Amino acid sequence: MIVVMRSGAPEIEISRITQELSTWGLHAERIVGKHKVVIGLVGDTAHYDPLQIQEFSPWIEQVLRVEKPFKRVSREYRHGEASDVAVPTPNGVVHFSEHHPVVLVAGPCSVENEAMIVETAKRVKAAGAHFLRGGAYKPRTSPYAFQGHGESALELLAAARQATGLGIITEVMDTADLDKVAAVADVVQVGARNMQNFSLLKRVGLQSKPVLLKRGMSATIEDWLMAAEYILAGGNPNVILCERGIRTFDRQYARNTLDLAAIPVLRSLTHLPIMVDPSHGTGRAEYVPAMATAAIAAGADSLMIEVHPNPAKAMSDGPQSLTPEQFDDLAQTMAVVGKAVGRWPQVTTAVA
Amino acid sequence: MIVVMRSGAPEIEISRITQELSTWGLHAERIVGKHKVVIGLVGDTAHYDPLQIQEFSPWIEQVLRVEKPFKRVSREYRHGEASDVAVPTPNGVVHFSEHHPVVLVAGPCSVENEAMIVETAKRVKAAGAHFLRGGAYKPRTSPYAFQGHGESALELLAAARQATGLGIITEVMDTADLDKVAAVADVVQVGARNMQNFSLLKRVGLQSKPVLLKRGMSATIEDWLMAAEYILAGGNPNVILCERGIRTFDRQYARNTLDLAAIPVLRSLTHLPIMVDPSHGTGRAEYVPAMATAAIAAGADSLMIEVHPNPAKAMSDGPQSLTPEQFDDLAQTMAVVGKAVGRWPQVTTAVA
Amino acid sequence: MIVVMRSGAPEIEISRITQELSTWGLHAERIVGKHKVVIGLVGDTAHYDPLQIQEFSPWIEQVLRVEKPFKRVSREYRHGEASDVAVPTPNGVVHFSEHHPVVLVAGPCSVENEAMIVETAKRVKAAGAHFLRGGAYKPRTSPYAFQGHGESALELLAAARQATGLGIITEVMDTADLDKVAAVADVVQVGARNMQNFSLLKRVGLQSKPVLLKRGMSATIEDWLMAAEYILAGGNPNVILCERGIRTFDRQYARNTLDLAAIPVLRSLTHLPIMVDPSHGTGRAEYVPAMATAAIAAGADSLMIEVHPNPAKAMSDGPQSLTPEQFDDLAQTMAVVGKAVGRWPQVTTAVA
Amino acid sequence: MIVVMRSGAPEIEISRITQELSTWGLHAERIVGKHKVVIGLVGDTAHYDPLQIQEFSPWIEQVLRVEKPFKRVSREYRHGEASDVAVPTPNGVVHFSEHHPVVLVAGPCSVENEAMIVETAKRVKAAGAHFLRGGAYKPRTSPYAFQGHGESALELLAAARQATGLGIITEVMDTADLDKVAAVADVVQVGARNMQNFSLLKRVGLQSKPVLLKRGMSATIEDWLMAAEYILAGGNPNVILCERGIRTFDRQYARNTLDLAAIPVLRSLTHLPIMVDPSHGTGRAEYVPAMATAAIAAGADSLMIEVHPNPAKAMSDGPQSLTPEQFDDLAQTMAVVGKAVGRWPQVTTAVA
Repeated sequence: MIVVMRSGAPEIEISRITQELSTWGLHAERIVGKHKVVIGLVGDTAHYDPLQIQEFSPWIEQVLRVEKPFKRVSREYRHGEASDVAVPTPNGVVHFSEHHPVVLVAGPCSVENEAMIVETAKRVKAAGAHFLRGGAYKPRTSPYAFQGHGESALELLAAARQATGLGIITEVMDTADLDKVAAVADVVQVGARNMQNFSLLKRVGLQSKPVLLKRGMSATIEDWLMAAEYILAGGNPNVILCERGIRTFDRQYARNTLDLAAIPVLRSLTHLPIMVDPSHGTGRAEYVPAMATAAIAAGADSLMIEVHPNPAKAMSDGPQSLTPEQFDDLAQTMAVVGKAVGRWPQVTTAVA
Repeated sequence: MIVVMRSGAPEIEISRITQELSTWGLHAERIVGKHKVVIGLVGDTAHYDPLQIQEFSPWIEQVLRVEKPFKRVSREYRHGEASDVAVPTPNGVVHFSEHHPVVLVAGPCSVENEAMIVETAKRVKAAGAHFLRGGAYKPRTSPYAFQGHGESALELLAAARQATGLGIITEVMDTADLDKVAAVADVVQVGARNMQNFSLLKRVGLQSKPVLLKRGMSATIEDWLMAAEYILAGGNPNVILCERGIRTFDRQYARNTLDLAAIPVLRSLTHLPIMVDPSHGTGRAEYVPAMATAAIAAGADSLMIEVHPNPAKAMSDGPQSLTPEQFDDLAQTMAVVGKAVGRWPQVTTAVA
Repeated sequence: MIVVMRSGAPEIEISRITQELSTWGLHAERIVGKHKVVIGLVGDTAHYDPLQIQEFSPWIEQVLRVEKPFKRVSREYRHGEASDVAVPTPNGVVHFSEHHPVVLVAGPCSVENEAMIVETAKRVKAAGAHFLRGGAYKPRTSPYAFQGHGESALELLAAARQATGLGIITEVMDTADLDKVAAVADVVQVGARNMQNFSLLKRVGLQSKPVLLKRGMSATIEDWLMAAEYILAGGNPNVILCERGIRTFDRQYARNTLDLAAIPVLRSLTHLPIMVDPSHGTGRAEYVPAMATAAIAAGADSLMIEVHPNPAKAMSDGPQSLTPEQFDDLAQTMAVVGKAVGRWPQVTTAVA
Repeated sequence: MIVVMRSGAPEIEISRITQELSTWGLHAERIVGKHKVVIGLVGDTAHYDPLQIQEFSPWIEQVLRVEKPFKRVSREYRHGEASDVAVPTPNGVVHFSEHHPVVLVAGPCSVENEAMIVETAKRVKAAGAHFLRGGAYKPRTSPYAFQGHGESALELLAAARQATGLGIITEVMDTADLDKVAAVADVVQVGARNMQNFSLLKRVGLQSKPVLLKRGMSATIEDWLMAAEYILAGGNPNVILCERGIRTFDRQYARNTLDLAAIPVLRSLTHLPIMVDPSHGTGRAEYVPAMATAAIAAGADSLMIEVHPNPAKAMSDGPQSLTPEQFDDLAQTMAVVGKAVGRWPQVTTAVA
């Protein structure tokens, strides 16, 4: 249930109502929007009558039920207002939100060594990226495949951050590694295979770094939003949803089926920002440019793109990685569409 | 196998080679490209050595095997050159091709009566459409649902054509109806449920109207191209492929999963033009604009969009139909992206 | 809606009620069960109140709405009683029904020549089969693959029928071929790719031979039952449903995913008999025995199994065909489970 | 690669070869079969020539490459011999293996209180179950749904074990809980949602309790075997694979699609024992009996079935739970088929 306060409702009245509702056994959470304050209520609200709550105060405009199984992530819970996940980076605060330009995240699948990660960071920054992606812990189908350099790779990501000022996005696979990962990452990633690792979701909900939540390979939109709900229920409101392709019957040419319709669907259901990863979404570098520009046209708030200095020799996911030169070209193509739809930064390169 | 002739190869030499190869039990088909002539060979080519054929004539540049199971529809078969499916309409010839502007096809799911179809045709023409879509014969899941007005609806489509000059695209469901449908339609549609109705594919391959081949609900890219191959093998080279959403595990919000990555995948595999139908592809009018613009950004050659004067009262597919006003708005949005990527007509309305 | 008559209701009263309801614009169909007569009503029943109809006659026990979108195929429509599709063959009448032993259908994918089809028919008959399957018209993904011998193959099937007394099941792919196929076939098959070829469904509904309706590759249970409803709505009540595997994300080892849970699901929803085709359902001969016996344990009323005298040289579907020897072994294994669950003929060979 | 030793090869020779191969940087593992010893080699074997290894000793019968991406779990790795996962329980050792009777695992979705779990344990034991299942930690789609009683529920499982002598199977969701779970469980379960939680797989591979690995909702057979490979690579050879339904396009009647063909597919690919869970596999109690008996006919080595004293009031998964009475009936039906295929215990009740 949500309690929408009238514009100009006095602080003391909002506090009084919030406290009163908390005594009813409900979790009451204040959401400060641009024009109004909304009080979100989670718990066993079925017993309460919205009209009964409305009578609490003349400053209450209306009381509404959230009919969806997901509450805190639902668009209604913020009374229709989009979230702004603002992430501080050395180069400045970057906003993931439908009211800001598209945020570019780029980098290799996995961190291989210092030279490659720092060099890649410099190249993607020059092309306009705001964040560097790179895996320290890698989920791999085979136990015999390269599993990532782990803790030492985290140090290399920190070095790349220092060298370029880019924010860092990297994946956590185990609750036991979360503190180490969160110490380096500006955004902590939960991967597709762990989207319903509920222990991990609870833990990332209890820490303060923003969380990038990739869609599971066969997760419905509702499963995915419920997974995000775990994080918000834990107390962390800063979640970015990343569509990365779902598993369907056709895997011959594209490895996954990139579900771009998830963009308008999510936009109508949730206030959370939306990222698209066309690299995993197609699994082939040659399909990435078409899907990256399509994602921008469809309204994505951010793009994550794999870039490797030498894809043919990559330790993982080479076939889906662009070269830095290809990324330069793509950045220009994306800028054309991004400007056309009014979602591109005025100056395409990040702050020097 | 394909035989690529050198530029300037004399006509008499091409004829001689074509005839010679025909005597080998191979079907030899001449494809005249912009710069070169290619002779496509279909049949039991496994027994022949490309080098042996190369020695036929010094005018042969090279002889290549088409390794894919689809031959005539493959990009190699035209030596990399895109097809141009040129369709005469009262308003002029419209080109479906990657080298031409995006072609807009719009109209209702089914033809309900003369007033509604003519009015809709005028409205979509004014917004920039080149073709009117509308079903006379409707494939419906239930035998008790409206099955289309059949033959009488074909007459109404002809009237709408006369009133507006738009080309007509309508579906054929039965070999027995083909002549009647082809007499009215400028492009004959084979629907998703009939994509592997091989009798129908063979028959539309034997007639001369261009064919719009929708992707089956669970057809792989390869299944789809093989279905198109049936039509080309029958002798009709004018096929347009239409992505309209595939069936996946998630059907709660969007009715199908629109596979936009099919655009770059098909582009690399085939010379045939590519259409996208975001109306069936999502099943919900509110998601259509995002997917229509995304399709253009991804490189679609044509868009098919359902428009109904009063979606709430439509006899079929109301929830996915735009109103004429919504289509006006969408046409403007599509124009912005279409111009940005260089695929929009200079003047957005069709020839008067 | 259905009108359940009391036991012993006089014929004249049933006729009176049926006629009366027909005047209401409803299609009233009499279904004679073992103990009771039920009058099925299809049409715009939403306007009528069951209580109003109940007052027609004291011989009416109850009037019930069929809430499902499928009416005539629903279990309620026959007031819970299973159908018995009784098919006359030279060897006697064979019953497809949950109250009869499992019916075995076996034979090659396609009819290749007279010797092979007659020999195969003799072999499968000796092992206990009641029907011979064999394709005259073959739906093939590629236009260059063997398309079946067509009309001449129908004659060979007739010869095999004469030589063995087995019933014949063969596929029709085109409304134009239906008369020819139905002249030879004891059961006419509509294949998976034509499950939503509504023109074909309507036509097979208008003729009198029983119809085997295979499930489409991505048809939901409801889609499938609606396709069967087309046939019953046309007037033909003798439909057998055949599960033959659905398309899922995993096609590496088994070509399709055989959905055996369709057996209990269909049992609860429909009165129609259920066949399982583990040959297409798995695409590999080595998996057929396990799935055939599982289908019997799960309650299938019939099994369709591909048998070819020399699978390695089959013109189609060799990898999924059993040899006659393997089929002999399988028949014995099936008999063990079939007897355990009380669904096996007392004498395993058909009547001589 | 595997090194197959001749029958009667002396221990000292086997040791010498194993040690020698270990010095090559390969992991050499001795597998003692019924008739022969096999030395499994995992590592970068591509550089070595089987013939070169064969010359090591005249006691080597042959050296073979394992061509599959999964090595230790592959059937070849044990030279075709099935594993026997022998689990000690208070009632005696229970064997999960294709050479032993079907093992029954039954119990509620989650442990609710002591009375219900002990009572259920007694009931399922009386009907022939060998193991009690019951969740202490529950993976739930919603953060607001019952998450299991956690540690206290583990104590209740221990009490039920003591009261009945049944073995205990319960799920672990977090590496941090593994020690606590393994202290009580006789078999530790990794659930479908964690099938590719590689951190968890590595950890259960390092401990000694047998592991039940459920198939992920959209895991291919190969993904699943690779997940099992993680556990074996960690040093724990005792893995049981449990098919529990995959996610497909049709979820209307059955919640998942139970892939029973996985049984013969796995049998040909791996030596590990195979369990089937028709309760999760269909999501509806009424479909469980047909699928349970089908699984036995198809060759399953074990069945896991949800039983709850009062399904209508279950805290989770009520609709798919059988009552104890229904389970009694099912046990008798399963016994009929189990005996027919030679896979049922001589005395159906477990040791008193």
